[in-house]
Amino acid sequence: MGSGFDEKNFLACCGSTKFAREMAAASPFPTYERAVEAARDIWFNKVDVNGWLEAFAAHPPVGNPNSRTQKTATGEQWCHGEQSTALATATESSLQELVEWNNRYMQKFGFVFLICASGRSTPEILEELKKRYPNRPIVEFEIAAQEEMKIIELRLAKLFAAKAEVTSTIS
Amino acid sequence: MGSGFDEKNFLACCGSTKFAREMAAASPFPTYERAVEAARDIWFNKVDVNGWLEAFAAHPPVGNPNSRTQKTATGEQWCHGEQSTALATATESSLQELVEWNNRYMQKFGFVFLICASGRSTPEILEELKKRYPNRPIVEFEIAAQEEMKIIELRLAKLFAAKAEVTSTIS
Repeated sequence: MGSGFDEKNFLACCGSTKFAREMAAASPFPTYERAVEAARDIWFNKVDVNGWLEAFAAHPPVGNPNSRTQKTATGEQWCHGEQSTALATATESSLQELVEWNNRYMQKFGFVFLICASGRSTPEILEELKKRYPNRPIVEFEIAAQEEMKIIELRLAKLFAAKAEVTSTIS
Repeated sequence: MGSGFDEKNFLACCGSTKFAREMAAASPFPTYERAVEAARDIWFNKVDVNGWLEAFAAHPPVGNPNSRTQKTATGEQWCHGEQSTALATATESSLQELVEWNNRYMQKFGFVFLICASGRSTPEILEELKKRYPNRPIVEFEIAAQEEMKIIELRLAKLFAAKAEVTSTIS
């Protein structure tokens, strides 16, 4: 892996191919903080709305992390981790309700309900979904992009942590 | 045509199929003002971001109204009318510059530069394009949707005017 990460690593952080390409071009990053800074700039200023939709489409619906939407095996694995609290706190009926509301959301907005699920329980996620559902499509689009940015930050942290692990094993 | 308009009439006003379907379902409208009110609600609250992109894609690039992007012959004809001031005031070099900036815009934002061109000269349009170009993609997306709404209002007015003409010819 050397001192930087490649396009595939960044694609595991965010499903926009432009995001991954630009991050790879901007890398290597001396610190995690600098990587996040670059990611924010690329995600909000350079990736266009089609790229946002491409990234959103790479997420499985909340409550159903087994959907095959992930572009990389790493992304799939991380997604499982991010949804682990939600899945652990889900009863069959709350999970069913989440799936139903997700479908309603998809039908209204044209993309999956996006939330940085890390550490959140199923009731919390469901409450947030119901609260956001009445939003105008463009408002919800921007909120989803902000949630995506939180997910990117978490995943970049995992990328840097994995690299630190490899480095310390080698040295 | 009866007292209402059909889906095809509304598709000539806006290239989003959802917009056209919902307008047809909400019609007939007693007045032009009520039609505009319904159109605003449908365009901003019901059509999702994919529908916005679908509508934007139905516009030819400014300065090139002959592109075959229009979904209806009426839309194509109206578009010619809306760009007539721009075309009449264009020199070959200003038109060339507009085409170049349009390409840059397309490359950054992923959709054509949208402006309610009615009555605007080529230099005015070019100035506006250059002013809007540095915007963040999401900001520009919303501005484009507002310009689209102005175009919808103009086209609805033409629809009502055409109907009034037919009615007075018959009576």
